[in-house]
Amino acid sequence: MGAAEIRRCGAVTQPDGSVTWRVWAPKVKRVELVLIDGDRRRNVPMRAEGDGYFTHSDGSVREGQRYVYRLDGAERPDPCSRWQPDGVHRPSSVVFHAKFAWTDRGWRGVPREDLVFYELHVGTFTTEGTFDAIIPRLPELRDLGVTAIEIMPVAQFPGDRNWGYDGVHLFAPQDTYGGPEGLRRLVNACHAHGLAAVLDVVYNHLGPEGNYAGEFGPYYSDRYRTAWGAALNYDGPGSDGVRDFILDNVRHWAEEYHLDGLRLDATQSIFDISPVHITSEIKGVADRAAGPLGWPFHVIAESLLNDVRIVLPPEQGGYGLDAEWNEDFHHALVAFLTGERHGKYVDYGSAADLPRVLEKTFILDGRYSRHRGRRWGASARDVSGDRFVVGIQNHDHVGNRARGERLAALVGPPVQRLAASLMLLSPHLPFLFMGEEYGETNPFLFFCSFGDRGLVEAVRRGRKNDYALQGEVPDPQATLSFTASRLNWSWPDGSPRAGLRRLYRDLLAARRRW
Amino acid sequence: MGAAEIRRCGAVTQPDGSVTWRVWAPKVKRVELVLIDGDRRRNVPMRAEGDGYFTHSDGSVREGQRYVYRLDGAERPDPCSRWQPDGVHRPSSVVFHAKFAWTDRGWRGVPREDLVFYELHVGTFTTEGTFDAIIPRLPELRDLGVTAIEIMPVAQFPGDRNWGYDGVHLFAPQDTYGGPEGLRRLVNACHAHGLAAVLDVVYNHLGPEGNYAGEFGPYYSDRYRTAWGAALNYDGPGSDGVRDFILDNVRHWAEEYHLDGLRLDATQSIFDISPVHITSEIKGVADRAAGPLGWPFHVIAESLLNDVRIVLPPEQGGYGLDAEWNEDFHHALVAFLTGERHGKYVDYGSAADLPRVLEKTFILDGRYSRHRGRRWGASARDVSGDRFVVGIQNHDHVGNRARGERLAALVGPPVQRLAASLMLLSPHLPFLFMGEEYGETNPFLFFCSFGDRGLVEAVRRGRKNDYALQGEVPDPQATLSFTASRLNWSWPDGSPRAGLRRLYRDLLAARRRW
Repeated sequence: MGAAEIRRCGAVTQPDGSVTWRVWAPKVKRVELVLIDGDRRRNVPMRAEGDGYFTHSDGSVREGQRYVYRLDGAERPDPCSRWQPDGVHRPSSVVFHAKFAWTDRGWRGVPREDLVFYELHVGTFTTEGTFDAIIPRLPELRDLGVTAIEIMPVAQFPGDRNWGYDGVHLFAPQDTYGGPEGLRRLVNACHAHGLAAVLDVVYNHLGPEGNYAGEFGPYYSDRYRTAWGAALNYDGPGSDGVRDFILDNVRHWAEEYHLDGLRLDATQSIFDISPVHITSEIKGVADRAAGPLGWPFHVIAESLLNDVRIVLPPEQGGYGLDAEWNEDFHHALVAFLTGERHGKYVDYGSAADLPRVLEKTFILDGRYSRHRGRRWGASARDVSGDRFVVGIQNHDHVGNRARGERLAALVGPPVQRLAASLMLLSPHLPFLFMGEEYGETNPFLFFCSFGDRGLVEAVRRGRKNDYALQGEVPDPQATLSFTASRLNWSWPDGSPRAGLRRLYRDLLAARRRW
Repeated sequence: MGAAEIRRCGAVTQPDGSVTWRVWAPKVKRVELVLIDGDRRRNVPMRAEGDGYFTHSDGSVREGQRYVYRLDGAERPDPCSRWQPDGVHRPSSVVFHAKFAWTDRGWRGVPREDLVFYELHVGTFTTEGTFDAIIPRLPELRDLGVTAIEIMPVAQFPGDRNWGYDGVHLFAPQDTYGGPEGLRRLVNACHAHGLAAVLDVVYNHLGPEGNYAGEFGPYYSDRYRTAWGAALNYDGPGSDGVRDFILDNVRHWAEEYHLDGLRLDATQSIFDISPVHITSEIKGVADRAAGPLGWPFHVIAESLLNDVRIVLPPEQGGYGLDAEWNEDFHHALVAFLTGERHGKYVDYGSAADLPRVLEKTFILDGRYSRHRGRRWGASARDVSGDRFVVGIQNHDHVGNRARGERLAALVGPPVQRLAASLMLLSPHLPFLFMGEEYGETNPFLFFCSFGDRGLVEAVRRGRKNDYALQGEVPDPQATLSFTASRLNWSWPDGSPRAGLRRLYRDLLAARRRW
């Protein structure tokens, strides 16, 4: 499918300065657009286009115009909202994307084999917790040898503290991070500093609060279930609209935010028995959308399946993505270096795993996994190392512990240096979690700021059930869980932290010379 | 995976005449084998082999030995029972497979391109409703030009009247059809008459009554749902045992029943995100098991996805099966010839569909399907016609109508002849439903004989909900629904029936000469 065939929804600004709203609402007989200006409200009937789409155009709309859709009665924000200036539950807002003055015309991107990822969480990377606050740190990341920042999900989520995987407005950069303009300034600055910007996007589920999509259309499958609730409907009745929703989102991030790539969250939970899997279509749409920009666009799967079909070309039955995660690398190293054997680490820990994961990529290549309770994975065959992303820390492995300990809180500087060396000298694409390069010891805890009391209690119970054996579990809803997770961003001269950071820089420099 | 690596369960007779029981019961701490001889019962503790398997061997067991397993208290028949002489709920029985005197050493099978299927339902094909009663009719089928009978599922089901898709003992041929010996006599006779025997097997769910598998192990997925209830667990924790259960079943039908192939029911509901899909493993195991027999073994998918990945080779990302169903052929012809447009026929009916389905195989090749509510299918590309099975009637299309009308009850002889000609002269593999060759007008109704009252009521309600618009729906539980579905097996000389049958015979003969 070509990007041009995707039905674009949301409040889309046109070349003539007008705004066209389009909403996919096949569950609804009648949709009105409600334009909100302070206390003034205008209800405008939308024209049915067929196939459940409704549209309306207006030539005299200004930036920031608030609006909602009225669906057979209830008023709801736009599932394709570009901006939620007042949070997930409140009205959507019009954004004039073309207004932004991009200065990255000369940017040529980063080839896949040169990717070195630096994962950061906007809310805790700086004290300010905004897109703009990241910009002053970009030169230090570039100096370190990082070539791409990977931004944890920014789709509008409930409240102002969240890892990002509870996002509900997939087109709207989080208001408390700085919204659309903030993200654009960050990406533009990345390019100015010679860094690529990759965004983590969640296409396997939608968040549990402020999620009204199900009132508009058949967004959810009645056939599949994910660990986070209902799976998105990629192959059942009405799935054309859901697929277009996601593919338009991909196009949106490429065209309108100039991103260099997307990291697809938990692709093993993107269930799709269609002849062409949605992740494969995502890659096609991304390439076509990014083509005119003049740099390569990387689509990377967080797949936990140890299955190279993710990166094999379609003619070999693959999805054709650029790279996939290889969690075996993390587990093998961390189990060996820390001695931990709980949970996912039960399948790892032998010294023999270290050369194996460097040479063969997968440890679980069809062998029995006690953690999975079955044989897991398949051989990585002769797929080259630069199709796999490896790390020794990330938000999940740090944050999904009772106390959110980073590696530097578990092992001393010599072991940190060993772990870093193995990663940085591996044939795979290195992936750093913010702060690991200087041995940050602040935790990275699980945090949220839901408004729904029942949901808050459910999350608290869930975290306790999962991690109580490891010790007391901090309250995920507490502000302190968030503020305690901020980086110190400090590596005093002569300290082990400065030494570790120097090691990262030197080895990344060495990598570039091979 | 090699067939040799599959853990074989059930009461397996050994070369030395002893019997080894093995049962996979990871949900159970302790399993006893209970040997039953009339009123006498002996409880024998089974030895835990690890991985949830329990075993016991006995050198002095006779054919027909009844047994059950005692699981932490409850007594249950064997999920891998070879024989349920007293129905689904009662004890299992030992069968000495090696005893049967096969006479098909010279059988060389039917190459794929020569396959002409004749689907029959054992219970209604003859008045007797047994495997043995089929045998006298084989010469007439061979004379007709059929090359393979396709036997609707025979895995032990509740009661004595069932289409077969409610089977619960996948290794046990239905007792009321004649059990293991009866099926073997039928297959042996097929081969003697130059006919292949293909068995319809259901690997997407287990039947709703008499199904105790879930008490033994994690047979069901908590991730997927089929239209018939819980999906089998092919990729979650414990799925190695489920996969082995199915793969051993495949091996069993090939090795111990000398079948020529399997028709896999509704493969679109066999959900599996493993690196190698279970249907692909089924083909591998089938080929290895059938290899020594000396004839080709055909694995055919009833896939409704219009997706040639089913038959593409693994190196192109396919499952490597021999053939897949092409329902578009049926729907295009029947909609055009009958004028019906309800349900699945809504997407068909134009005259242009007829040349298209002959030339391009799929009508729904990515275009929007109103019935499916989404774009459906993909191009059949250049996959040859003999990889697709086409028919103008089958048990589903006839039986899933309020009154179970066959084509001959809907259209007159000239139209029947036209439909048959289009099928028989198509480049695809023809598929006949028992009786269509002489224009049988008896209905083929939906029937069952469950023992569970609640289930009976649920099935009655379900049929009424689905088909009440078409008229009064006969009671599926009534014996009359079964007996009314029997064939007349009569084509008096000079009648249109005799003419139609002659047409089938002549065109099948013509096909062989191309």
